[in-house]
Amino acid sequence: MTTKGLCMQELEPLQQTAVYVVLGISLLGIAYAFILRSQILAQDKGTPKMQEVWGFIKDGANAYLSRQFRTIAILIAILTVVLGASVFVIPPTTEAVERFGTPEAAKLWVAIGRAVAFLMGSLFSYTVGFVGMNVAVEGNVRVAAAARKGYNPALQVAYKSGSVTGMLTVGLGLFGGTLIFMVFGIAAPDALLGFGFGGSLIAFFMRVGGGIYTKAADVGADLVGKVEAGIPEDDPRNAAVIADLVGDNVGDCAGMAADVFESFEVTLVSALILGLVLGDAVRGTIGDGDYDLRFIIFPLVLRAIGVVASVIGNSFVRTDEKRRNAMAAMNRGFYVAAGLAVAAGAAATPFFMVDQTTGVVDWRPFLAALSGVILALVLDKLTEYFTSTHFSPVKETSKQSQTGAATNILSGLALGMESSVWAILVIAGSVFSSVLIYSGEPLATQFTAVLYGVSLTGIGMLLLTGNTISMDSFGPISDNANGIGEMAGLDKNARNVMDDLDAVGNTTKAVTKGIAIGSAVIAAVALYGSFFTDVNKVLVQIGKEAITSINVAAPDVFIGLLIGGSIPFLISALTIRAVSRAAAQIVNEVRRQFRIPGLMEGKVAPDYARAVMISTTAAQKELISLGIIAVIVPILVGFLLGVGPLGGFLAGIILSGQLMAVFQSNAGGAWDNAKKYIEEGNYGGKHSEPHKAAVVGDTVGDPLKDTAGPALNPMIKVINMVALIIAPIVVTIDRNSPAVLGSMFICGIALIWAIWQSKREAPQMNEPVKANASAD
Amino acid sequence: MTTKGLCMQELEPLQQTAVYVVLGISLLGIAYAFILRSQILAQDKGTPKMQEVWGFIKDGANAYLSRQFRTIAILIAILTVVLGASVFVIPPTTEAVERFGTPEAAKLWVAIGRAVAFLMGSLFSYTVGFVGMNVAVEGNVRVAAAARKGYNPALQVAYKSGSVTGMLTVGLGLFGGTLIFMVFGIAAPDALLGFGFGGSLIAFFMRVGGGIYTKAADVGADLVGKVEAGIPEDDPRNAAVIADLVGDNVGDCAGMAADVFESFEVTLVSALILGLVLGDAVRGTIGDGDYDLRFIIFPLVLRAIGVVASVIGNSFVRTDEKRRNAMAAMNRGFYVAAGLAVAAGAAATPFFMVDQTTGVVDWRPFLAALSGVILALVLDKLTEYFTSTHFSPVKETSKQSQTGAATNILSGLALGMESSVWAILVIAGSVFSSVLIYSGEPLATQFTAVLYGVSLTGIGMLLLTGNTISMDSFGPISDNANGIGEMAGLDKNARNVMDDLDAVGNTTKAVTKGIAIGSAVIAAVALYGSFFTDVNKVLVQIGKEAITSINVAAPDVFIGLLIGGSIPFLISALTIRAVSRAAAQIVNEVRRQFRIPGLMEGKVAPDYARAVMISTTAAQKELISLGIIAVIVPILVGFLLGVGPLGGFLAGIILSGQLMAVFQSNAGGAWDNAKKYIEEGNYGGKHSEPHKAAVVGDTVGDPLKDTAGPALNPMIKVINMVALIIAPIVVTIDRNSPAVLGSMFICGIALIWAIWQSKREAPQMNEPVKANASAD
Repeated sequence: MTTKGLCMQELEPLQQTAVYVVLGISLLGIAYAFILRSQILAQDKGTPKMQEVWGFIKDGANAYLSRQFRTIAILIAILTVVLGASVFVIPPTTEAVERFGTPEAAKLWVAIGRAVAFLMGSLFSYTVGFVGMNVAVEGNVRVAAAARKGYNPALQVAYKSGSVTGMLTVGLGLFGGTLIFMVFGIAAPDALLGFGFGGSLIAFFMRVGGGIYTKAADVGADLVGKVEAGIPEDDPRNAAVIADLVGDNVGDCAGMAADVFESFEVTLVSALILGLVLGDAVRGTIGDGDYDLRFIIFPLVLRAIGVVASVIGNSFVRTDEKRRNAMAAMNRGFYVAAGLAVAAGAAATPFFMVDQTTGVVDWRPFLAALSGVILALVLDKLTEYFTSTHFSPVKETSKQSQTGAATNILSGLALGMESSVWAILVIAGSVFSSVLIYSGEPLATQFTAVLYGVSLTGIGMLLLTGNTISMDSFGPISDNANGIGEMAGLDKNARNVMDDLDAVGNTTKAVTKGIAIGSAVIAAVALYGSFFTDVNKVLVQIGKEAITSINVAAPDVFIGLLIGGSIPFLISALTIRAVSRAAAQIVNEVRRQFRIPGLMEGKVAPDYARAVMISTTAAQKELISLGIIAVIVPILVGFLLGVGPLGGFLAGIILSGQLMAVFQSNAGGAWDNAKKYIEEGNYGGKHSEPHKAAVVGDTVGDPLKDTAGPALNPMIKVINMVALIIAPIVVTIDRNSPAVLGSMFICGIALIWAIWQSKREAPQMNEPVKANASAD
Repeated sequence: MTTKGLCMQELEPLQQTAVYVVLGISLLGIAYAFILRSQILAQDKGTPKMQEVWGFIKDGANAYLSRQFRTIAILIAILTVVLGASVFVIPPTTEAVERFGTPEAAKLWVAIGRAVAFLMGSLFSYTVGFVGMNVAVEGNVRVAAAARKGYNPALQVAYKSGSVTGMLTVGLGLFGGTLIFMVFGIAAPDALLGFGFGGSLIAFFMRVGGGIYTKAADVGADLVGKVEAGIPEDDPRNAAVIADLVGDNVGDCAGMAADVFESFEVTLVSALILGLVLGDAVRGTIGDGDYDLRFIIFPLVLRAIGVVASVIGNSFVRTDEKRRNAMAAMNRGFYVAAGLAVAAGAAATPFFMVDQTTGVVDWRPFLAALSGVILALVLDKLTEYFTSTHFSPVKETSKQSQTGAATNILSGLALGMESSVWAILVIAGSVFSSVLIYSGEPLATQFTAVLYGVSLTGIGMLLLTGNTISMDSFGPISDNANGIGEMAGLDKNARNVMDDLDAVGNTTKAVTKGIAIGSAVIAAVALYGSFFTDVNKVLVQIGKEAITSINVAAPDVFIGLLIGGSIPFLISALTIRAVSRAAAQIVNEVRRQFRIPGLMEGKVAPDYARAVMISTTAAQKELISLGIIAVIVPILVGFLLGVGPLGGFLAGIILSGQLMAVFQSNAGGAWDNAKKYIEEGNYGGKHSEPHKAAVVGDTVGDPLKDTAGPALNPMIKVINMVALIIAPIVVTIDRNSPAVLGSMFICGIALIWAIWQSKREAPQMNEPVKANASAD
């Protein structure tokens, strides 16, 4: 008997058509992104003065990304080769052999597939970040120009600029996943892991690099401009002001876009891998021994529905000059898309989740995805509760500013810690909903089925990524437009429009972070299932006993857990310190330029490019060492301690990564808004003592919420992917062989170098910052 | 064939003698404590003015502890009954039946044993805290009086006051453990868990209550005295100054003493329980089927050796008027004790760790204990590196104060996060050393043997508790003596002596926290072993399949892990907020008193007792709700999710508890010392801008290092004990029965009430604090 269902060609006709339609939709999404982009490029760029400022930003942003590309290109090249080669160390999976005929062909295909998929993932992630930033930069000036015409025109340009990134993200993510499945069929997991790893690694670099860049420029510009020289924010005499605006683009646009792309991609990867595992697990129960690929088709269909729903939803985002309500407009777009997606998902279930033999429709995957949509909404509300000025937590932090900076800080720390408790409980609840949904499943397949449910929760969470990113990008674009408006001296009306859009953008921005990090936990929990499957396939082939659990009560696994849990603390400490270090360099440079005769009088233009260059170089320096830490630590844990401890390590990193990411993001968001709440006239308003205290909190929060916190999400995924890729190798080879021990020794040296490199002391500032009497 | 080795009476003669000797040594330790106490009481109490101040402190401290006792007495009474009753829900263990003849007798004995042991643990913990504080209070004034005579007399009184607590801790801890073993023999684990739970729960209350009290008084007194009114620290006109001094005693003496007692006790409990498990596991391999109790005798012997070594070491703590080096004197005492203990432990091994049949000596338990001694030393050095002014981390934080409070805070946060990474790696390393030490053990018993090794590492870590506590208590005693000196107007010479002792005390204080929290992880890892054993004994008796792993890859276990990891964040957030809330009340009260005519002129004495009362009441309010959270959360997780998730929950709480405890303690310590480093004349010295920035950091650090951080150590153990006690019940009863679901509903309501109670907003201060021009 020949086993059927190995690949595309052996699918049911309906399923085959569906896959082609999904691929088509992903391509349409990409095309739609480029259409939107050309619509934006066709808009008016405003006055020559505006274009001059914008030119500086554009040059700075492009310089940053191309420099970053050069920095990481070598690492990517090396990893591509290593990933391809790693396939030859372990026996090919039965699935790969079934798919490609012989073990040799299987090995070759899988090696090429994994390497190419890794490259593709990296490239897509980079493209999303690059185009996202590019279109944001193009959008900035045009939003400023449109603001002179009215509220809705400005909103349209800003939102559409964001939509370019959004549609590109979902288009490329879906295209990659579908393509890999079409080529590899049941042998897809290896290539999918490569795809996920590439995307996550680049996202990690974009988040870390962008985060350090933006906060170094921001903190440096503020310290020496606002605090010391007593000149306003975005004052053209401050040499770091362009770097600050560039930072918004490389951090909040490029970094965020790559990060969300990576989340979108990894949730899809986990659903496809788990779909294959579940399909394999239930194979026997259907009776014919054929692979049942509906568990793969369904997530692809859901994702395609999400893309279409986002496009339709986006067309509902408009307001008029009377209402001027951007938030309501965007929410309308989101709810329309959500309603459509849920309805279409329900409608698709009877077609794609029906048992061919019995005709029974399996509603459980849809319910699991629905719980993901709900999870995203609840996390959204939770973030809003803890970071918006309308609720008691931020008001409390504002109130505590009355007794000084220390009580403001303490209040924000407590708030951040508490918010991570509730976030994790919500996530735990949604994982539990999969446990409940699949509680009726036969014991033999229950474990896998629950994990598949969890992976669909991840799909549900990011179902409306097209809308989410549009709303998120909106923030930095309006922020930059506002900066251009200030520097180019735009009129009051236009500035008011941009001020309002900017404020709305602050709210939408915080939400995305909560969803992105939540998806890391969901994807990671699901991927645990494939950890077992991958390892056990190899163990069975080399004649060893299969593992059935990661026993955290075993001391060696617990050691893995402890090491894993510490990594987010290490990355946070290193990135926070990197920001301080880079900010000190900016301070020195701006001071130097202030002393140039004529500059303070506005007669001589400052050298913006130098400050941009300093931020760029400083951010790049940290990338390699942090990248090495993320890639090497799991390798060391796996090969030195074994596969059980590697599993414990993963659990530790997910747990503490989630807690630290939410803690830092929300504490930072709350401090930011506590300052805004005081500026709105509460507790003494601007220039009061409480306001000064709140400014301290805001500055503390900057690197926490924009550098350390957001870096943890892609970091968790990078480490997860590395662990999944090496686990089969760990159980195959002799870990005590000289070759392995020698390699681990080299890895250890590289790790020590990386940590040492990241721990260097901050360069001494020429002299301490002294507050100017006229400063805020 | 009758099984031998069930209890004391069936031990080898040498072992029997050893147990009696151990009991004798524990009693001698207690007696020695009381002899030291009467020696101190015989010292001169100084001038009437000094005694007046001291009288206020004494009254305040006693009032606090007796109030606290009333608050928690009811909870203790309820828990005693519940614990006793809980025994009747599950079948008695085979061991208990073997020991006491019939199942009925076994149940009755175990029920009484667990309830009485719980009461004993609570009472001992409370006694250690109470006497420790009492002798510290008595010591304070006598140190101040002795300081007028010279350096060594003052050191002697201060160190001996600390030694009272130290000897009482080790004496009572060892006495309780030995007594339980003597009465219950192989049926001891149930009673030991009760003993450990009682000690941990009281320690949690002492740490939380004391921590809130001391920091509320400290922060409140500073805000309104130093910052607002511009009067010096410890100025007698400040109504909160006595509360501040009382706080040092109830927080740093009573809280710390109970905490270390609890750690000492729980490491012993875990070693005894694991010793029984291992004895049972290797039973078959010896051949006669008798219980082999040497794995229990050995830890008892080691502990007794530690007690004797501490007494001898303490006699080496002296200096003279020429050298005036308290640190060197204490270190000498410690190293002498350590050397003696290690040598004696090695000498005892051939007698107590010899295989009766083969005559082979098993050196592995000794090696594991030795690795514990080394772990304590390394953790000590690590804490010193991250929190002392002599190394680069604190210097870096001082330097970052040049750019203001925000960079000072960021630097401290990064430092704290990084320090917790290294601490956890060191702890992981010492767990790994047990894995290596027992790598040759046969597979059947390897798992248990490694855990036994880990428990001996815990014994080793706290081997020299007598010295550690003496050194730690020294800090607050000298601090208080200094305060009395200031208020009573002592001469410059005496003040210099106390200043120096105070500074040395700051260093010794930080070290204890690191060791205490480290021991939590070690004890918890070891106790995982008894988690399995307890549960499986019950499962076998009720005819269900034994569990062999806590599979963290299972979604429900992962949910437990997520919930567990969030608890330390919740407790930290709530305790930090509790300090703010109580501090605001103190600020209001001191302000009210400042307005009393004549008070600021020094003509009218402030009402110190009112401030003491406010702090006391505020601290007590939080106790019940935090206690409920610690006890109820594991119950809910266990009964609602099951025993696997309960295991995951434990792992999560240990991991994130350790990380957060070290992060908060070390960040706080570093901020404190960064301020001191600047005060020593660096970066502008006192009254400079960097100093003001460093004061903000110091204030932020106060509740982190003295309230939230230290509360996590006993909290981990409380939850661990609750989990171990309920696990057998969880697997026995029908979790879906109306009775269980009803109880869980009530528990859920209680939990929500407790969290709501702890989350109330801070009372609005009458008006914000405004810095006085003459303030620091």
